[in-house]
Amino acid sequence: MKATDKLKIKNNEGKFICVGLDTDINKIPRHLLKYENPILEFNKAIIDSCADYAAAFKFNFAFYERDKFKLFDDLIKSLSVIPKDILVIADAKRGDIGNTSEMYAKAILVDMNFDSITVNPYLGEDSVLPFLQNPEKLIFILALTSNSGSKDFEKMKLENGKILFQHVIEKIRSWDSKQNCGIVFGATNSQELQENIKLFGNLPVLLPGIGAQGGNLADVISTFNSASRKDFIINVSRSLIYKSNGNNFAEESMKEIINLNNQIATLFNIKKNL
Amino acid sequence: MKATDKLKIKNNEGKFICVGLDTDINKIPRHLLKYENPILEFNKAIIDSCADYAAAFKFNFAFYERDKFKLFDDLIKSLSVIPKDILVIADAKRGDIGNTSEMYAKAILVDMNFDSITVNPYLGEDSVLPFLQNPEKLIFILALTSNSGSKDFEKMKLENGKILFQHVIEKIRSWDSKQNCGIVFGATNSQELQENIKLFGNLPVLLPGIGAQGGNLADVISTFNSASRKDFIINVSRSLIYKSNGNNFAEESMKEIINLNNQIATLFNIKKNL
Repeated sequence: MKATDKLKIKNNEGKFICVGLDTDINKIPRHLLKYENPILEFNKAIIDSCADYAAAFKFNFAFYERDKFKLFDDLIKSLSVIPKDILVIADAKRGDIGNTSEMYAKAILVDMNFDSITVNPYLGEDSVLPFLQNPEKLIFILALTSNSGSKDFEKMKLENGKILFQHVIEKIRSWDSKQNCGIVFGATNSQELQENIKLFGNLPVLLPGIGAQGGNLADVISTFNSASRKDFIINVSRSLIYKSNGNNFAEESMKEIINLNNQIATLFNIKKNL
Repeated sequence: MKATDKLKIKNNEGKFICVGLDTDINKIPRHLLKYENPILEFNKAIIDSCADYAAAFKFNFAFYERDKFKLFDDLIKSLSVIPKDILVIADAKRGDIGNTSEMYAKAILVDMNFDSITVNPYLGEDSVLPFLQNPEKLIFILALTSNSGSKDFEKMKLENGKILFQHVIEKIRSWDSKQNCGIVFGATNSQELQENIKLFGNLPVLLPGIGAQGGNLADVISTFNSASRKDFIINVSRSLIYKSNGNNFAEESMKEIINLNNQIATLFNIKKNL
């Protein structure tokens, strides 16, 4: 199934949460350390408990590159237990000159068969195009990120009056001939989201920054609702997967994602009834 | 030994070439395919033949992420045969929000013990600082890259009259309190190199783009010579490691790096005698 169709179906079911598997051996419940592959056990439990309620799963590659990349075995096994109708995103933030980006695209979208990858646009068009060759995939390109450092470059004003991230979004739209581009837009930037959502066109949006990073869920939903858009996912990592350290950690994460889904439904309905 | 000291010693010996191990199973000599690990055999032969003449070795991570990251075993074994006095760079172009960059830094600079890594600055200060914690390491941050896409964002003019890559370089200098920052500056941009080299301060420079990408060696040396600077390395990948497909491929690569060293020496001397 096309990645964009997977997303649309989940969005239509009222599912907007992307479960971020930033799995850290130092943060998972201690009782899992008795297993041979604690990270795999943790991921399997979270996937199993959250799959019915999630719009997507996202693997933060940094966490799997530890221990000389040995944890990639856990990532690959985790991937295999995710139901095929759920979008799976490689949060790898890759981007390099053309022939190197082509290798990254093959490694992650072909060899590992991820539906989707995050890409850093700094190196420009020829660094991004190799990721866009297959219309079945969905490529989330960084526009405005959720961190404080976004002010250093992404929010710089250009001579032509635009902000750099706005110029990046315009470029992404010009690269979207296969309709397989999306953007990353940090939920911590609620004002910029409101002011720029019209600029996004039809690009699906991946929003990190809710939860541990302090972004406001109500602001995000209000903005998308006002724009009559439902093609987005909100990533939640630490505040969801580490909800509990007890034996019932997976159940507590399930309760949290259901809670988030209910909050979102309520926020959409409130707006509708105004 | 500190990474910057490794570089200084090699530069003082007249060594400026960084051997880029962009090792691709489809491009290595066919007779190596009979080995169990052809990529490892190729790397070992190139390292063995070029180590006496190289300033650094650089691993392009994209090439080792193929086959579900299985090639990282070859990368790790290749690393172990490089003499300890030679700078080894992870060309990974990582960069993410703070806690994720911290994981990338641990994975590559601690777990794998690389001397150096390339970092993408798009996400700003908190995405870069985790890489700069250890003064023993040398962090090459992308300023202006060698590809055509560099015009899309890196060369955009800002409202304050600077070009984005110039603003990035100024930021890098402000982050260099441990004197472990360097910059990546594409050798294909010879005019920008000449016009901006004073802006670099004391930051060591990694220059890709010579060889297959068409950058001009004489222009680079002339600019560094005029600026009385010798703290730089020129990366050469495809045009050096794939010099020959024959049984003598490693010897041909050795001849090529010696040839490049001689060209550089001549270019420096010519200028001196003017």
